[in-house]
This record gives sequence, structure tokens and C-alpha cells, in this order.
Amino acid sequence: MEWLDQIKWDAQGLVPVIAQEATTGDVLMFAWMTREALALTAREGRAVYYSRSRQRLWFKGEESGHVQQVHELRLDCDRDVVLLKVTQTGHEPGIACHTGRHSCFFQVLKDGQWQAVDPVLKDPESIYK
Amino acid sequence: MEWLDQIKWDAQGLVPVIAQEATTGDVLMFAWMTREALALTAREGRAVYYSRSRQRLWFKGEESGHVQQVHELRLDCDRDVVLLKVTQTGHEPGIACHTGRHSCFFQVLKDGQWQAVDPVLKDPESIYK
Repeated sequence: MEWLDQIKWDAQGLVPVIAQEATTGDVLMFAWMTREALALTAREGRAVYYSRSRQRLWFKGEESGHVQQVHELRLDCDRDVVLLKVTQTGHEPGIACHTGRHSCFFQVLKDGQWQAVDPVLKDPESIYK
Repeated sequence: MEWLDQIKWDAQGLVPVIAQEATTGDVLMFAWMTREALALTAREGRAVYYSRSRQRLWFKGEESGHVQQVHELRLDCDRDVVLLKVTQTGHEPGIACHTGRHSCFFQVLKDGQWQAVDPVLKDPESIYK
């Protein structure tokens, strides 16, 4: 598919991906995709990443049920970063982070320290049974 | 500085960075920082990236005048991605992209093609004189 060929994949065949909540604009998480993951994401309308640690496709929500429904795919000027507009399903409000928080970006630099400022919405132990 | 040590720098000593407009929530761009770039960003309150192509610090706006004022720095759960909340200065509305557009993510996947959907706000030739 031509639109996949137009992406500048890195030396490992990956592209960085930002997931942004469509309604709030919140940046939920950052991950990576292979060509296969991105093709599946576009076809299925749900986020499929590539887990570098587990070295396999990662169907977001496969364990937690916190699936990301994808409304829009965007590409940057250099064609080497993808932005997804998503709905974070499976919990209200949405939980994108494995710590049980809304967003993975819950630590703010304050007084020279990273401080967790966003609440845990659900105990991770009850998310990953 | 301890907060810099807590970041998981990649093998090249870099961390990926997402710049998000504080007022609108728009994701403006994605770039990389070295430890020095991130320390400068926090100290100066303006975005300083590391240009991988030019292999040097890149004071965002150094040529264009389109400086990013930084209001907040956030770190993700894995401590390997930084999110900046910024005001994109130098033009109204803000221009973050070297193509003269508001955001670098101006291409949307539609009908199996990447289509540029956001307007050029200023001719790049008049930005980079």
C-alpha cells in the first residue's frame, strides 16, 4: 500500500506514534508501530502497536480491555511520526496508562523533581488479572 | 541534576519529545533532546531540541523567530518520553512547522492517501530568509 511506503521507517522498521484523545486533546501515550501494526490500525480502526520489549504486535487493550478506537491518522511533515486521534474505551474516564491513570504523562517537573500529579483511576492489579 | 538522571536516555543519549500547545491542546511537533537540550529547556523556559540531522542543539525559533515558550514539562510512566506544554510565539496563530503550518501533523489519511488538510499560514521562503 502506497501510503505505508511513504512513511520513513527507522532502521528497525519502526515509526513513533502519539495517541491523542479526540474529545479532550489530551496526549495519552507514545509508542511504536511496525508497518504491519500501522496497516492493522488503519484497517481495524483500533490501535495496534509494536512492543519493543516483547518484540511482538501489541493490540492495545488485549489484556486490559482498554482498547483505543482510532478516528484519524495523521503524519508529520518529515513523514516519520504518526499521530492518532482516539477514543480510549473500556473505562470512564479513559485509562491509557498501565499504572491505571488516564494518560502516561502524569509526572510534572516541579521544584526540580518529577511529581505524579494525576490520580490512579483503577488499581493496576485489577486491570491485569 | 537528579531529575535528568531519572530519564531513560536511549542508546544515542536522546529522549523523544512531544510539543503540545497549552491553550488548544494541538500537538505541534515531535523532536528529540539531549540531556543538555532538556536542561536548557527547563532553565530558559523555551524549547531547545537536538537536531539529529545537523548534530547540534537547535534553539527552536533561532532562524524563524517561532520560539516555543515552555509552561510545563511532563514525563511518561516509562520515563523515556517528554511532553512539553508550550505557547508557540512569533506569529498569530502559531507556526510550529517549517512548512509554515500551525502543526507538523497536517497530513490526514483519507481514501488510502496522505492528504494535506491544514493551511500554510506563512510562506516558508519568508520565514527562513
